[in-house]
Amino acid sequence: MRRKDSTSVFDEKSKIIAADFFRDLRNRICSEFEQIENTQNQTRHRDMPAGEFSRKVWHHADEDGTPGGGGEISLMKGRVFEKVGVNISTIHGHFSPAFRAQIPGAEENNGAFWASGISLVAHMRSPKVPAVHMNLRMIVTAKHWLGGGADLTPMLPSPQDKTDFHASLKECCDRHDPKYYDEFSAWCDRYFFLPHRDEPRGVGGIFYDYIDTGDWDKDFAFSKDVGNTFLDIYPKLVRRHMNEEWSDEERHTQLVKRGRYVEFNLIHDRGTQFGLKTGGNIDAILMSMPPEVIWE
Amino acid sequence: MRRKDSTSVFDEKSKIIAADFFRDLRNRICSEFEQIENTQNQTRHRDMPAGEFSRKVWHHADEDGTPGGGGEISLMKGRVFEKVGVNISTIHGHFSPAFRAQIPGAEENNGAFWASGISLVAHMRSPKVPAVHMNLRMIVTAKHWLGGGADLTPMLPSPQDKTDFHASLKECCDRHDPKYYDEFSAWCDRYFFLPHRDEPRGVGGIFYDYIDTGDWDKDFAFSKDVGNTFLDIYPKLVRRHMNEEWSDEERHTQLVKRGRYVEFNLIHDRGTQFGLKTGGNIDAILMSMPPEVIWE
Repeated sequence: MRRKDSTSVFDEKSKIIAADFFRDLRNRICSEFEQIENTQNQTRHRDMPAGEFSRKVWHHADEDGTPGGGGEISLMKGRVFEKVGVNISTIHGHFSPAFRAQIPGAEENNGAFWASGISLVAHMRSPKVPAVHMNLRMIVTAKHWLGGGADLTPMLPSPQDKTDFHASLKECCDRHDPKYYDEFSAWCDRYFFLPHRDEPRGVGGIFYDYIDTGDWDKDFAFSKDVGNTFLDIYPKLVRRHMNEEWSDEERHTQLVKRGRYVEFNLIHDRGTQFGLKTGGNIDAILMSMPPEVIWE
Repeated sequence: MRRKDSTSVFDEKSKIIAADFFRDLRNRICSEFEQIENTQNQTRHRDMPAGEFSRKVWHHADEDGTPGGGGEISLMKGRVFEKVGVNISTIHGHFSPAFRAQIPGAEENNGAFWASGISLVAHMRSPKVPAVHMNLRMIVTAKHWLGGGADLTPMLPSPQDKTDFHASLKECCDRHDPKYYDEFSAWCDRYFFLPHRDEPRGVGGIFYDYIDTGDWDKDFAFSKDVGNTFLDIYPKLVRRHMNEEWSDEERHTQLVKRGRYVEFNLIHDRGTQFGLKTGGNIDAILMSMPPEVIWE
């Protein structure tokens, strides 16, 4: 019999599979992004050194100080990627009583949880290259589920990028469930929206949460595919635009657009709120902040 | 007999006195800040034209579209004041049902409210000159009260500025109630604090709210004194430092410090939340955002 305050009767092997995949994906992403840095040839920044990821380990503790896992932030400030952060974490502990009511299954076991995930935000030097966000996560309370998604934020209109990004994610979704793409792209549009500006954050992508069909292997195959699809399509968009020229006006437009990104993340984003309320590492939570921003 | 959904039985003359004072204070502040722009003589920016305020009128409407007053944003982007906004507003209407519970007296009259105030945020070009925030407000529901305050955010350590700013506000408080300064400076320290960073936003000042001693004229004399005291002390601090030289490193420190300002305002500030939840004008609400910010 399990203790009342432990997480669900759930195959511990799945936790290991998920955390291992997130780590491996992180490694492949960082390697690919460093390769992009090496091949850049844009006028303004070709004389800068190619960026390399640096890594910072952090440890999680509950509000009462009880330790429970941690994470690693990989951060690169390069000549293509002005600032890109890739964070992986695997933490466990107890949600605070005030927070439990918002989390499925958290009140049934005194707030005990286990969570693992990867989160990525890239802010690019070129306003011609869209910013991007990708996240995959597995949460275990008395219930367990998978969530994630990827979404694109062009700084200037770029319909072809939007089309290709969505087509790639649609193919990915269709490999797993014909209903997924419509449902998850609509969810993405609803989620990444700034009501106070009455405008979307970007051009969407997919967003999903609370996935538990009863077949974890099948569900996780979808999350893996989303991660691998991201790693396939986003570098293509970066390479498509990274050597193009841009004007100071386009750079200005980019820095103003980044302000909207900040507003969304600090006012609305659930991931940010989740991090702040679970005593998350502040560097990891605010890794998503753009390097340079303008408010007019 | 008054209708159930109107604001309290409260001297309408006081509303006019308050709104008129806020407008007059706005005019005097803008005039003083423009004078400062004209006398600047700092190496980096002396060739820029002196800043002048531009004004933008906005109108308030409740969520259902019912109009109810509005405000004026005065904005200056100058060579001393990189971005300073002074907003005055006088609005009325009904708080949304969800918001009423948080506002004293708002549930007793179906959310009817009247509010008038002045709000100011100044972000300076020089990292040697502290940023500042000042706000005065009068709210009427079934109850009525005054609130406000002023607080200083130096970008580099400047103990003399802190000392003088606090001394000035303490003298102001002491003219009205010997308990005010201790109470309101402690409230300011509690309020302008970033729990997620475990650091204060600035070096404090005073913050007060829900003032209603039963003698409105006396209470409002205090708010007027706070406004006039601000207009006396802050320009002195600006003139003290505005012609000093600064380094690129000091500028960088300033831009990073401004990120904390953004985090506070978007994550914690009640005024921002109040504005967003009452359908406030987005330009007026986010007028406080710094013009240029860095997250490292």
